[in-house]
Amino acid sequence: MSPNQLDHKSQAWSALFSEPMSELVKRYTSSVAFDKRLWRADIRGSLAHAAMLAAQGIISQEDQAAIERGMAQITGEIERGEFDWKLDLEDVHLNIEARLTQLVGDAGKRLHTGRSRNDQVATDVRLWLRAEIDLIGGLLTQLQQALVGLAEQNAAVILPGFTHLQVAQPVSFGHHMLAYVEMFARDAERFADVRRRVNRLPLGAAALAGTSYPLDRERVARELEMEGVCQNSLDAVSDRDFAIEFTAAASLAMVHISRFSEELILWMSQNFGFISLADRFTTGSSIMPQKKNPDVPELARGKTGRVVGHLMGLITLMKGQPLAYNKDNQEDKEPLFDTVDTLQDTLRIFVEMVGGITVRPEAMERAARRGHATATDLADYLVKKGLPFRDAHEIVAHAVKEANARQVDLAELPLAQLQAFHPSIDADVFELLSLQGSLSARDIVGGTSPRQVLAQVARHRQRLS
Amino acid sequence: MSPNQLDHKSQAWSALFSEPMSELVKRYTSSVAFDKRLWRADIRGSLAHAAMLAAQGIISQEDQAAIERGMAQITGEIERGEFDWKLDLEDVHLNIEARLTQLVGDAGKRLHTGRSRNDQVATDVRLWLRAEIDLIGGLLTQLQQALVGLAEQNAAVILPGFTHLQVAQPVSFGHHMLAYVEMFARDAERFADVRRRVNRLPLGAAALAGTSYPLDRERVARELEMEGVCQNSLDAVSDRDFAIEFTAAASLAMVHISRFSEELILWMSQNFGFISLADRFTTGSSIMPQKKNPDVPELARGKTGRVVGHLMGLITLMKGQPLAYNKDNQEDKEPLFDTVDTLQDTLRIFVEMVGGITVRPEAMERAARRGHATATDLADYLVKKGLPFRDAHEIVAHAVKEANARQVDLAELPLAQLQAFHPSIDADVFELLSLQGSLSARDIVGGTSPRQVLAQVARHRQRLS
Amino acid sequence: MSPNQLDHKSQAWSALFSEPMSELVKRYTSSVAFDKRLWRADIRGSLAHAAMLAAQGIISQEDQAAIERGMAQITGEIERGEFDWKLDLEDVHLNIEARLTQLVGDAGKRLHTGRSRNDQVATDVRLWLRAEIDLIGGLLTQLQQALVGLAEQNAAVILPGFTHLQVAQPVSFGHHMLAYVEMFARDAERFADVRRRVNRLPLGAAALAGTSYPLDRERVARELEMEGVCQNSLDAVSDRDFAIEFTAAASLAMVHISRFSEELILWMSQNFGFISLADRFTTGSSIMPQKKNPDVPELARGKTGRVVGHLMGLITLMKGQPLAYNKDNQEDKEPLFDTVDTLQDTLRIFVEMVGGITVRPEAMERAARRGHATATDLADYLVKKGLPFRDAHEIVAHAVKEANARQVDLAELPLAQLQAFHPSIDADVFELLSLQGSLSARDIVGGTSPRQVLAQVARHRQRLS
Amino acid sequence: MSPNQLDHKSQAWSALFSEPMSELVKRYTSSVAFDKRLWRADIRGSLAHAAMLAAQGIISQEDQAAIERGMAQITGEIERGEFDWKLDLEDVHLNIEARLTQLVGDAGKRLHTGRSRNDQVATDVRLWLRAEIDLIGGLLTQLQQALVGLAEQNAAVILPGFTHLQVAQPVSFGHHMLAYVEMFARDAERFADVRRRVNRLPLGAAALAGTSYPLDRERVARELEMEGVCQNSLDAVSDRDFAIEFTAAASLAMVHISRFSEELILWMSQNFGFISLADRFTTGSSIMPQKKNPDVPELARGKTGRVVGHLMGLITLMKGQPLAYNKDNQEDKEPLFDTVDTLQDTLRIFVEMVGGITVRPEAMERAARRGHATATDLADYLVKKGLPFRDAHEIVAHAVKEANARQVDLAELPLAQLQAFHPSIDADVFELLSLQGSLSARDIVGGTSPRQVLAQVARHRQRLS
Repeated sequence: MSPNQLDHKSQAWSALFSEPMSELVKRYTSSVAFDKRLWRADIRGSLAHAAMLAAQGIISQEDQAAIERGMAQITGEIERGEFDWKLDLEDVHLNIEARLTQLVGDAGKRLHTGRSRNDQVATDVRLWLRAEIDLIGGLLTQLQQALVGLAEQNAAVILPGFTHLQVAQPVSFGHHMLAYVEMFARDAERFADVRRRVNRLPLGAAALAGTSYPLDRERVARELEMEGVCQNSLDAVSDRDFAIEFTAAASLAMVHISRFSEELILWMSQNFGFISLADRFTTGSSIMPQKKNPDVPELARGKTGRVVGHLMGLITLMKGQPLAYNKDNQEDKEPLFDTVDTLQDTLRIFVEMVGGITVRPEAMERAARRGHATATDLADYLVKKGLPFRDAHEIVAHAVKEANARQVDLAELPLAQLQAFHPSIDADVFELLSLQGSLSARDIVGGTSPRQVLAQVARHRQRLS
Repeated sequence: MSPNQLDHKSQAWSALFSEPMSELVKRYTSSVAFDKRLWRADIRGSLAHAAMLAAQGIISQEDQAAIERGMAQITGEIERGEFDWKLDLEDVHLNIEARLTQLVGDAGKRLHTGRSRNDQVATDVRLWLRAEIDLIGGLLTQLQQALVGLAEQNAAVILPGFTHLQVAQPVSFGHHMLAYVEMFARDAERFADVRRRVNRLPLGAAALAGTSYPLDRERVARELEMEGVCQNSLDAVSDRDFAIEFTAAASLAMVHISRFSEELILWMSQNFGFISLADRFTTGSSIMPQKKNPDVPELARGKTGRVVGHLMGLITLMKGQPLAYNKDNQEDKEPLFDTVDTLQDTLRIFVEMVGGITVRPEAMERAARRGHATATDLADYLVKKGLPFRDAHEIVAHAVKEANARQVDLAELPLAQLQAFHPSIDADVFELLSLQGSLSARDIVGGTSPRQVLAQVARHRQRLS
Repeated sequence: MSPNQLDHKSQAWSALFSEPMSELVKRYTSSVAFDKRLWRADIRGSLAHAAMLAAQGIISQEDQAAIERGMAQITGEIERGEFDWKLDLEDVHLNIEARLTQLVGDAGKRLHTGRSRNDQVATDVRLWLRAEIDLIGGLLTQLQQALVGLAEQNAAVILPGFTHLQVAQPVSFGHHMLAYVEMFARDAERFADVRRRVNRLPLGAAALAGTSYPLDRERVARELEMEGVCQNSLDAVSDRDFAIEFTAAASLAMVHISRFSEELILWMSQNFGFISLADRFTTGSSIMPQKKNPDVPELARGKTGRVVGHLMGLITLMKGQPLAYNKDNQEDKEPLFDTVDTLQDTLRIFVEMVGGITVRPEAMERAARRGHATATDLADYLVKKGLPFRDAHEIVAHAVKEANARQVDLAELPLAQLQAFHPSIDADVFELLSLQGSLSARDIVGGTSPRQVLAQVARHRQRLS
Repeated sequence: MSPNQLDHKSQAWSALFSEPMSELVKRYTSSVAFDKRLWRADIRGSLAHAAMLAAQGIISQEDQAAIERGMAQITGEIERGEFDWKLDLEDVHLNIEARLTQLVGDAGKRLHTGRSRNDQVATDVRLWLRAEIDLIGGLLTQLQQALVGLAEQNAAVILPGFTHLQVAQPVSFGHHMLAYVEMFARDAERFADVRRRVNRLPLGAAALAGTSYPLDRERVARELEMEGVCQNSLDAVSDRDFAIEFTAAASLAMVHISRFSEELILWMSQNFGFISLADRFTTGSSIMPQKKNPDVPELARGKTGRVVGHLMGLITLMKGQPLAYNKDNQEDKEPLFDTVDTLQDTLRIFVEMVGGITVRPEAMERAARRGHATATDLADYLVKKGLPFRDAHEIVAHAVKEANARQVDLAELPLAQLQAFHPSIDADVFELLSLQGSLSARDIVGGTSPRQVLAQVARHRQRLS
């Protein structure tokens, strides 16, 4: 066996270089500290590449067997924490290749035939991300299921629905929970769309132009369960759309988390008191002994910024880059990794936390009695008596003004008073003006009546099973 | 007919309000200056709503006919530029409704039955955006076709392929163009995905909770050619995912435009001189008489920032908003409109500009002869003689060092010299070291050989037809 | 007089160009639609340039006089709305120069001596922005004064202070208002810092390299009241730091506005009811007759996204641009203009709106009685009796638990009960446990006691006068 | 000594909590993994607090001495890597306090008197950031000095100045370097401005409202060398302006780095060949043996995205937060830390790399001879002969057209030919049309003549010494 060139990287990159890389540069450009988490994808991709090289007669069966043996040992070493990651070897790819060559000699040096780090790293990241997307898909399902469960239990619980944070109309608390199920369902759809574009094979693009070896790229794609091969080698090595697209989808998911968090925090506030969170999801204060703070939703709301920042960073990174691969691209990894971690951790904790929510129906209903929540019902009542909607709206505005003057809710005005605003009003109006009556009346697809809420619950149950 | 309440909006919002809106507030909150571009979608949505109301017996056939008559007149007035848009009426919706009521009386006031501006505006924006996405889809097809045409003509033209902006390997100029076709094809895919999520009907969600009228939402969805109804009223009025998702897709398309622009600018620079742009796409200088500047790609590269800024703005807008509708959401429109305009204008001008590119093959080939572009071919040659790739790589590094010392390209070293680096090198090496030989050798799927480029061209032609 | 070349720009940029600019390109690259708002700065800069050219003997006194006469007429035409802005002339600069040459002939053509549009536009934007910063400074002062006034009136009004939106400790409503005064004071500081860097003169840098005419740049700087000249011509024409820095300062100001808005919206919500806004700052609903919505703070909160988006857009724009001027830079204007407009409109409306806030002290005090707001005072009491703080904290946690079990506030536990937690507690504890007692006790610099609040008020009054 | 409550945090936050924090929550909310880097600032702040508490008689001299003794030991433990950081203790603050209490008993428990983690963490971050800003200031000085040195050596080296990446006018390479000195000088100014606002003391604000202990905040400020105390307790604990402002300044610095990097990459490209970088700043390719890639500037250009992303993240974090402290704020740290690290590492490596630049004057001058770089000089020549600038500009455009037709540079046209465009042209024109002549002619403040460049060098030398 000839000497292992990678053993001498600390002296010079290759014979072409007259001095070793500066220590400062080494630390600045090395990625092994963070990209080693790709090791499993790297090995899987290498094994598929080696199998294809052998099948095509580019390397021998013996070489392939040696590579498989070496990789099995490396897998064990990494899993046991015994692998010696070296900064001098820059990244996960060279670290594994160097170790492989130590273990199996020339066969290891043949592995990189027809391959460049440019197509290798793109393949690794895609393989890794595909698995993470599947994990995220599972967490989104669990979160939806938890919310659907909460919705079902609270289908008939009345919450003041807000627009502009002003009391608008009574809604079902279950209905409110299902609004978030819609959001997380859209997130799952989006991740599935992203997955299709992630799941394509760059390998075979080599440095940028393809290779002169008769590679069978479709075979490698099948082996790696990918949907197809990237059709243009220049695009294959320089494309980072998938990272941006993934982070954009993650940003939207975090925006939904941030909206839900905002509401949990509001509802936990003493002025609302609509819910409480189990103690295990709260923390105290180092100075104020009475505090139980909703740290988890606050932190999740804050972490939205983090993910959005990564999206911005990735777009800035790619903007204006000429083809093909540039070193800038190495900066795609940390934001992508942190986005995955942040989103998964957040979803995982929200799945648990939703189970720790205690609903306070009396507080919600009490709040719904402030703010004339059924004023629209009175207008609708008048429309059914024949008034154009705009006229009915104006009449009710007068009635609300009167109720405000008397410091009562609209529903508490006496019939005679109501009739002074319009003679067509009868005693049957009071059922409509009740919160329960208002809720039940909204009985169309997508509406908040408990019947509709339960229909939504059934539909989601089926979809998620 | 009773008085038209909307005629008095300058005095007070409704009877409930004790003073008119401050002039400053009116200007600050009014959206009619920009949202009037939604008028066609607004009218189309209203007509579908009215037809359904009549079919359900909620309004009379006469009212529906009157609404249709009024809307036809309003359409004419707007098209002829005669419509009197009023700031006092806040937005496109109230402006049209007020005019309708002037024209057809109480029927106009009945139109808003079972509807709120919250679900109306969401419907309008979705209808409008759907049409714009279709237009963008068409422009992306045209741009791909223009690039495919350029690629076909230049399938065998040799360009120095760069990584790190250093000469890497020779590539076909056509192949390089097709890398952008891949990008714009992905953009088209993404917009198609976004379109599915845009094309759902919020109408029927009313303010936030649904409505007590027996609306037939599916009928309206069919009439408006939408794929389904939004299943949760709270989500329907507060969701702006579609705007963010669209703007994210547009940002990626602009990132691709920015990369292409960067290359056009580089290639136009005298130090490259790879292409020239037709004069009609360039401008001069107020001071330097010799200048022809590539303003269009520069400006396009700059406009990437604009679209990315809108994406960031929209995410910031939605982050942490409690349900359901909040006025913040009104700020979704200007960034969305400007994103659509910017992307469409840019695509339109790029379609034309690609046709105005003159390719300079000699300059490209001359540049490819600098930088030892075929060094990898020499390494591959040695591998085929039995050396492990890593060893071959190191031998070629020595040869390159020698060529540098002699100030010649690797391909210009004499055979004897090459053999000094490895005895297995024969005279047949020189064909591989030629640019043409290197190009033709990369003959695998996705590779840069002219044969592969023409295969890609054929595939794209079929896909785009 | 020789022909006016600018009259023929629709035919070709100059003799060097073989065809006119494409119509599409003209619309895409033209900036006159938005940069005409720089006209006053443009004329002012040109007059200073002309005066210097004459003083240096580069143009004649007659030419200078003709230029001044022409510019006076142009000023009148623009002010009266009679100026004919032409798309063909690209931008504000060529429009004014072309008109000047029509009016005064060759003198007009001499104005551009030793100047390029590159240094001209940089000068214009800086002159314009300086004036806008001064206007913003004035608005920030007014807003601080309005808040200081509100603070003074409410120095002794008790508000529940929140951390994590949980009741923490009682604070003075005035103190809370003064927190925003601190923020806006920092904004004013920052804008003053930005102004220094805006207020430097690029003129004289010409296209990028300086000029061969003996210009007296310091003279122009003095004439334009600038603090100095840009010391490097390449930097002078390509620097857009000032636009980014301004927009970053504006983003921070909008973040403060967004936080204040969030609180106003919360406080207006029926569940808080801490304040009401005058009707003229609220709007109604098209469907719900009872609604009064805090549109202004909501919209302001939303507009934060807009300004932040502009910041991100500007940074993306400049990232990776080689020197010197590139056309990308033209994209600096719209975001900068819109940032200025948005911030000024928002500050103006907030100045007015603060005057329309009605404070509801009873509601605030009622809310402060929930959540054991004085628990920290009990811990401090125990410390003064000799306990280490951590021990005192733990004892009070037990007391709060007991109060929760009894569904009373900590301050309502009987003395005997309190003594069961620690024998050192005496009857004097109840004064400390009162909201008023707690408030008054925080009597150190920066603390919330009414005495400190009034001291802050006095300090701000002096600073702002 | 009473028991150490912090020892039992794994069981429950305090007596008020009925269950321990969930493991998932603990990991999600704990910050000790990253905020432990604040340990030195934390101890310094605590010592100043303790000294003041003792001076005010709030704790005894013995307690203060014990605290100092304990902190000295903790300092040693941390420096020696022996300190046992515990996840259960959430953050750096509780970790240190818990250890202190283990070491010195009740004195440790008294340290937190009149203090909350809210004001403590704000103080720590400010102290830490102030030191980092000072370090950055030093690095910016070094980088400017390196560039000034390079400029001085190359004051007379001719580079083609570009606008729109088209050859514009000859400039001095030294002048070009000094453009970056201007940028980094502005960065240094900005960081100095930020430092003033960082360097204010929040301590004494306690949780949000100040404290009832007679703290002497000014004394602590003096002890910590801060410029003053934060004047409003609510603002003191909730303000993160300084983090955003710092990150905005860092983003601008990185934008400058990205522009410089873009140029280094261009200049290294074979088509320019203007410079080379020492081998120790470049890397090779795993597949292409001839490559030397400018990894450092590429990666630096890419890292711009990272810092800009952090800016976006921080703004998103703060937008819309109600007062006072919310847990979201904990998310300020990682982006801030990473921004500091990225900027410092990048500056450090650029200081070194500038020293490793080899300039290739012949390549630059050769490039400057393409593109009629002295066309403006010809126009200026005609102006000096009496023509209005616009007429001269047009005449030169004709001459350039002729030179293009003959495929020569404008300076190479014979005199007779030039005179055909205007009879006033004499043989003396050729000196002006030379690159050297053009360069020397730009001899005004900020211009590119070598004399001016050396004057700039002298000015910077003085400023930086």
